[in-house]
Amino acid sequence: MTSQTVSGFDLLAADDVANAAVGDEIYSLAAEIFPICRSITGNGVRQTLDILRQHIDLEVHEVPTGTKVFDWTIPREWNIREAYIRAPSGERVVDFQRSSLHVLNYSKPVRARMPLQELKEHIYTLPEQPDAVPYRTAYGGDRWGFCMAHNQFLALEDGTYEVAIESSLEEGSLTYGEAFLRGATEDEVLLTTHICHPSLANDNCSGLALLTALIKRLAKQKTRYSYRFLFGPGSLGAISWLSRNRATASRVKHGIVLSCVGDGGGPTYKKSRIGDAFIDRAFTHVLKHASRKPNILDFIPYGYDERQFCSPGFNLPVGLFQRSQFGTFPEYHCSDDNLDFIKPEHLASSFEMVASVLSVIENEKRYVSNNPFCEPQLGRRGLYGSVGGEKSVADRNMARLWVMNLCDGSHSLLDIAERSGIPFSIIADVARELAEHDLLSEGSEMSR
Amino acid sequence: MTSQTVSGFDLLAADDVANAAVGDEIYSLAAEIFPICRSITGNGVRQTLDILRQHIDLEVHEVPTGTKVFDWTIPREWNIREAYIRAPSGERVVDFQRSSLHVLNYSKPVRARMPLQELKEHIYTLPEQPDAVPYRTAYGGDRWGFCMAHNQFLALEDGTYEVAIESSLEEGSLTYGEAFLRGATEDEVLLTTHICHPSLANDNCSGLALLTALIKRLAKQKTRYSYRFLFGPGSLGAISWLSRNRATASRVKHGIVLSCVGDGGGPTYKKSRIGDAFIDRAFTHVLKHASRKPNILDFIPYGYDERQFCSPGFNLPVGLFQRSQFGTFPEYHCSDDNLDFIKPEHLASSFEMVASVLSVIENEKRYVSNNPFCEPQLGRRGLYGSVGGEKSVADRNMARLWVMNLCDGSHSLLDIAERSGIPFSIIADVARELAEHDLLSEGSEMSR
Amino acid sequence: MTSQTVSGFDLLAADDVANAAVGDEIYSLAAEIFPICRSITGNGVRQTLDILRQHIDLEVHEVPTGTKVFDWTIPREWNIREAYIRAPSGERVVDFQRSSLHVLNYSKPVRARMPLQELKEHIYTLPEQPDAVPYRTAYGGDRWGFCMAHNQFLALEDGTYEVAIESSLEEGSLTYGEAFLRGATEDEVLLTTHICHPSLANDNCSGLALLTALIKRLAKQKTRYSYRFLFGPGSLGAISWLSRNRATASRVKHGIVLSCVGDGGGPTYKKSRIGDAFIDRAFTHVLKHASRKPNILDFIPYGYDERQFCSPGFNLPVGLFQRSQFGTFPEYHCSDDNLDFIKPEHLASSFEMVASVLSVIENEKRYVSNNPFCEPQLGRRGLYGSVGGEKSVADRNMARLWVMNLCDGSHSLLDIAERSGIPFSIIADVARELAEHDLLSEGSEMSR
Repeated sequence: MTSQTVSGFDLLAADDVANAAVGDEIYSLAAEIFPICRSITGNGVRQTLDILRQHIDLEVHEVPTGTKVFDWTIPREWNIREAYIRAPSGERVVDFQRSSLHVLNYSKPVRARMPLQELKEHIYTLPEQPDAVPYRTAYGGDRWGFCMAHNQFLALEDGTYEVAIESSLEEGSLTYGEAFLRGATEDEVLLTTHICHPSLANDNCSGLALLTALIKRLAKQKTRYSYRFLFGPGSLGAISWLSRNRATASRVKHGIVLSCVGDGGGPTYKKSRIGDAFIDRAFTHVLKHASRKPNILDFIPYGYDERQFCSPGFNLPVGLFQRSQFGTFPEYHCSDDNLDFIKPEHLASSFEMVASVLSVIENEKRYVSNNPFCEPQLGRRGLYGSVGGEKSVADRNMARLWVMNLCDGSHSLLDIAERSGIPFSIIADVARELAEHDLLSEGSEMSR
Repeated sequence: MTSQTVSGFDLLAADDVANAAVGDEIYSLAAEIFPICRSITGNGVRQTLDILRQHIDLEVHEVPTGTKVFDWTIPREWNIREAYIRAPSGERVVDFQRSSLHVLNYSKPVRARMPLQELKEHIYTLPEQPDAVPYRTAYGGDRWGFCMAHNQFLALEDGTYEVAIESSLEEGSLTYGEAFLRGATEDEVLLTTHICHPSLANDNCSGLALLTALIKRLAKQKTRYSYRFLFGPGSLGAISWLSRNRATASRVKHGIVLSCVGDGGGPTYKKSRIGDAFIDRAFTHVLKHASRKPNILDFIPYGYDERQFCSPGFNLPVGLFQRSQFGTFPEYHCSDDNLDFIKPEHLASSFEMVASVLSVIENEKRYVSNNPFCEPQLGRRGLYGSVGGEKSVADRNMARLWVMNLCDGSHSLLDIAERSGIPFSIIADVARELAEHDLLSEGSEMSR
Repeated sequence: MTSQTVSGFDLLAADDVANAAVGDEIYSLAAEIFPICRSITGNGVRQTLDILRQHIDLEVHEVPTGTKVFDWTIPREWNIREAYIRAPSGERVVDFQRSSLHVLNYSKPVRARMPLQELKEHIYTLPEQPDAVPYRTAYGGDRWGFCMAHNQFLALEDGTYEVAIESSLEEGSLTYGEAFLRGATEDEVLLTTHICHPSLANDNCSGLALLTALIKRLAKQKTRYSYRFLFGPGSLGAISWLSRNRATASRVKHGIVLSCVGDGGGPTYKKSRIGDAFIDRAFTHVLKHASRKPNILDFIPYGYDERQFCSPGFNLPVGLFQRSQFGTFPEYHCSDDNLDFIKPEHLASSFEMVASVLSVIENEKRYVSNNPFCEPQLGRRGLYGSVGGEKSVADRNMARLWVMNLCDGSHSLLDIAERSGIPFSIIADVARELAEHDLLSEGSEMSR
């Protein structure tokens, strides 16, 4: 084994060919599921999960309407088949077939003719972004409406319009998908993203596709941890899962909520409620060594499903990973969050960041020095590189000194990476190498 | 009760009419006591206390000359009736009746005629502020002197002057005032200001008048804590009180020394010796949310009477509240610290800051969530405001999420206010509201 | 005793006359040992120690070639008598007699004639500093070479050159010097500098000479601690000493590695691996009050012999003191690090910093207030200076207030100095003074 070889868990090194194309792979899948009209319930979620199941094993759960999940009740199921506005000219000026954003999510059915003036009360636009169609919801189910570009709205001619929304709100169920990969221990790593937004590429499709690519690769690996993946509608999906798995939720030792992972911003990590959980330290460390300056945020009880996992009764170590922070970019929650907004290269680098965090989680351990008195003579073991004098050689030399200095039984590899400022991957790699030369003994693996 | 109503202790909400005029009320009282010549002993202190007693119940204590108070001895009592300098022209160029600052405080009596040259050795001026009369003391009692504006001093014509100081330094006593309001517990909040400076409006009168207005209002309230107020001469007043109340001083759980509360600077808070006492956290929190950027200072053993309360044998949680920090403004300790320097609006805002801190002290408690698993459904309880979308609604929504997330038995309301960055008053208010909806149970009140 | 007198340990006050000249004294000794060709073994080290022994008691230790010292083995001993390059013109263009830097340290012997082209492969220069001769080593002993200025190298004429290096690499020993001054306790302060570089003034001679001057003065003092001084070759010297003194190394309670103490940069202090050891706090405190902004560095396992003392099996509280940090100044490791680069005034101020740190170590203790309730009346004891109003009087007054406020049994003098921001020397001095007035009782001396 050369010093560059990695014997520990490393998803990125596992299959170079597949990983080179991972950005394209994620992008393709995101594009495939993009047109589907998802909501917090309904067939759009099932259709999406069916596509993901072509790539990964996935169990689909149905939670019937009326089920109590903690303080909440599963609502009726919404489905939609058609929706359009026909202008006096006969033209369909808005058609749900062109974009699932055009209909107010959870609209009640309507079929009517009305003057423009009356229709206007049912139309939602974004005057400050006049060419974009907004994404709007009315989960109460007692309204109907359409969303369109403000410029199109302004150009509507007077006259009588025909509107049709063919939707239903009936007893049914809430649907979520779950994947599980058994590892060496029952301790779990949880990864989850929401599946409840219609045609929004970054704020939904990107996370679904990235996790699918991750599961495909992880399924081929031996891991210390078991891995659980959830694809559920925001809030109610997580609440349903927690309600059904209350007794075993504490197996989750590290968790990541993912969203908006396809744009070029950030990276952004919002810490768990615990604040210094291992996942918080691992993500902070990995992002600090990413090429872009990361945006590390303290926990607040507002955001995505980390709100539920971090509620005080669970208080799980679950953080939120995004590129641009949701709500802060103009493309958010409108038709500008489309397939042009996300890029294969950003999806690939988001994948790499998550995979690096999993490497930290899987490889974290303590070694104990067999040579604690003074420095060992690294040179005679070929462990003090002088060839070339490149930066990477100097880094590895320095990493060896740090590892030998701090492997005293009280410092883990992440502790050493944090104190030295050297990436975990290099620290873990030189530690393995030093252990092979009997300078270190493997200490306990660290499950927390 | 609407969500805006406050059922907890809130001095500011207690009597809107009176509070609207509190700045004028404090200013008037400060103006009334301004002319009196106070010193560390003497009738000026008694006269001042007599005026305060027209508004509040106050016990007046006399500590006889020669009494040992810890390492100190009460000095002889100084009184003054008259003091002037008569110029060769016959004019009284300096007259104690015009300003009590004109005489060196604790001057011995004199009645003499002397040439200007000799007189000059007894005259104190401020060359760098040539129109202001300085405030000077000579507590030893073995000197006499006058203070005047430097410009007036320069204009003195040659010739023989008549000087007269009719003062006495005799066996007597040191005087201090004490007010006590019994609350539900024996734990005490101590508020104190010095009463030993002659005609200085900010550095004395403002604090005396503000505390008087506070006592008037607090006396009408039911409180958890008992409240103790001291009006004593600087250093020796606090030392005397501590000497007489050594056994019970530890009842003081929170304390504030007040001074210079009438100018528009600061606000300034100097922490207790403990540094992270509850009073330190409460004051820092309240001032952080004040409109002006506060000046939060670490404890140093130099300043006002916090020096004595924070001596190591007592180490009481007592901080110092001021607007501009003493010694840092040019009006300090001279005739520019007059009734033009202090303003009703500054006195009112200082009052509001102190009252807000008392609200934090009185309302601090722990609640425990009755709904710790996932978020509660606030909407169906009418607790998730969407109307208007104003900032205050968004703040209250966010406050509810924080309270539900952190009421796990280990976070108090101030803990939540600090972590969320939301004012304590909003946090306490939404907590009461959530408790009324049975989402929280009241935990223990927190006396420390 | 006046308040300016110091009764505690103070090397700087001990002999004013000698200390005024300490910069010149250190410079002279550095200049005397400058020409000697030192290496990690050999007679250069012995010669240097012989000169130091003219000033101080020093035990010289020899560790035979082949001795195992932890993971290392003592190498063969290298000595050199002569080395030159004779040009075709007959001129000795390079001569070891002119500077010990001219020969590659640990060169094997050679005596040959060769064309310029072949010779060039054995010549080391610094193209980026073309007038300086680099310092180079080849400890393997299987190479020979010369170092010269790049400009001289470029000017070498073609032709046949004669080269001669008369060196030997044989069984022998590694040499180090050790001085010990017994104090009141067995607890030790360790001071050490390396003795393995040839003619480099700052990076070797300055430290050797400064420690010698320090030992001369310390030998005349009564001290609480015992003092140990090491003069050994870098790495192997410290490793040898630790190997031979493994059982008693834990007596070292505070340690300083010294190097590069003669230039005008820094001051630089690199903390021990412990990070907040007393030596780290003491050095940080002293340098913070030095005239130049100090460079305080966290521990890294790369540098001088602190690497060995701070290896995890020992983890001794040993920091590194330098003026400019090694490797960061252009004069480093070349002929520009000569007797013009170091200055008596810089050596004197480095001496003063080290002596001040020793004063903190020797004088650290806890006092307990005999007057914990309120402030004592300092004025009647003549302890509240008002004369002059100079800064130093104000500082001493403030220092007295701090000491009386914090001498509660839990704060040491350094704690008080750190919290107050007042130099330790003033804090310790007023504490002695207050103890003489029975306001403080001496608590325990603090050995850690």
